[in-house]
Amino acid sequence: MVGPMNSTAKIRLYVDHPLGEGQCVPLDRDQAHYLFGVMRQGAGDPVLLFNGRDGEWLAHVTQAGKRAGELACDTQTRPLQMPPDLWLMFAPIKKARTDFIVEKAAELGAARILPVQTAFTNAERIRQDRLQAHAVEAAEQCGGTFVPEVCDLQRLDRLLDGWDGARRILFCDEGLAGASPALPGFFRDEGAAPPDSGPWAILIGPEGGFSDAERARLRDMRCARAISLGPRILRADTAAVAALTLWQLALGDWR
Amino acid sequence: MVGPMNSTAKIRLYVDHPLGEGQCVPLDRDQAHYLFGVMRQGAGDPVLLFNGRDGEWLAHVTQAGKRAGELACDTQTRPLQMPPDLWLMFAPIKKARTDFIVEKAAELGAARILPVQTAFTNAERIRQDRLQAHAVEAAEQCGGTFVPEVCDLQRLDRLLDGWDGARRILFCDEGLAGASPALPGFFRDEGAAPPDSGPWAILIGPEGGFSDAERARLRDMRCARAISLGPRILRADTAAVAALTLWQLALGDWR
Repeated sequence: MVGPMNSTAKIRLYVDHPLGEGQCVPLDRDQAHYLFGVMRQGAGDPVLLFNGRDGEWLAHVTQAGKRAGELACDTQTRPLQMPPDLWLMFAPIKKARTDFIVEKAAELGAARILPVQTAFTNAERIRQDRLQAHAVEAAEQCGGTFVPEVCDLQRLDRLLDGWDGARRILFCDEGLAGASPALPGFFRDEGAAPPDSGPWAILIGPEGGFSDAERARLRDMRCARAISLGPRILRADTAAVAALTLWQLALGDWR
Repeated sequence: MVGPMNSTAKIRLYVDHPLGEGQCVPLDRDQAHYLFGVMRQGAGDPVLLFNGRDGEWLAHVTQAGKRAGELACDTQTRPLQMPPDLWLMFAPIKKARTDFIVEKAAELGAARILPVQTAFTNAERIRQDRLQAHAVEAAEQCGGTFVPEVCDLQRLDRLLDGWDGARRILFCDEGLAGASPALPGFFRDEGAAPPDSGPWAILIGPEGGFSDAERARLRDMRCARAISLGPRILRADTAAVAALTLWQLALGDWR
């Protein structure tokens, strides 16, 4: 689907540079190649810019070269729109599905994305830079003005060691699938709470599920709540999208 | 995530053959290659079978060959579990994302999947057989006993010409993004209706959105209801998963 673009600008570009009235924005080699080589833009052409901090700005090309270029900001078209304070923690799976989870988390409005290594996670490392680029691309495509930070892979047990109990954890336990559907009741109850219901994190397990020790530890945490995602077993990437959707509807900015 | 398998059987296989006590099930070349070549199973080994009609059966290998084989059914491990009477209609997009939509619809419990050609759909044809295979694989992976039918591509206008008004349409209109969030209210209202709320179809548009004519026609249909999926613009594949999730929670079998 096409983003809510200014009618005169066909391209939306993320830049890691301050944006403001009259601000000049240099382009690096890749950006210049994309804008002038691939997208055939030239001097004077309008482009929408965002940097994840200063909202969205209508800019125009002031210098177009093969390896560099420059834009100048004209007017702010949208303010920065922050997503709710929701983290997505997930155990990396196969490459395409991990990419997909990051893209969908950025689209659906997670504030921070934390790949975690659980007892049954096969991945030893991730390409953080590549995943961050996926989050940027998702924001470019989908009209977002914010880009969630993708953290480097960390061990779930260590992350939980230092956990701030003020951030509640929605723990998607595939062991509950087919059990009594606790989920709708949970979301309806929570939905009745005051709108500003504080920070949350969604936790999605790996293909092998959580270990008994992990499950026991999470169940003992007062801030953690296990839910089931319906009667069918969902793949981890499906579970991530479903949980983000349900949280946004019940507690986030889809209300 | 691992499906709810019998502890003795590691493999779940879809077969297009009747299943029942003592029933012999011949394997075709591809199935024999997968089961005996790739998965290294042999005579006597247990396998779970389903065919989308007769539930799930524990079977064992009676003949294992390079190009053929045979299984015999022992006991039914689960009855057929039908999803709710929900169709997913979507405009095909890029290959990987179309595959993804079919996979997710099968996982999340759609009964039928209908690729539709809208005014702004680029695809002229689809590989129906390949998409059907994706639905089968999703059911194999996710413990489903039902496989949704994937229809061949048809024109949306013709489909609507013959539409049975008893099947309501949930029409995800990206033009509403950022507008008043009609969605939660819609789902809460509908959630209060009697449990058996009849057949539905979710309709997801292509990247370019619906045409004005399509939008006007859908808005004039008494059985159709337009909703917004939150304040951010979602890609078509994300919109499909989000809409399926919300429908299952409000009206389907996640209640």
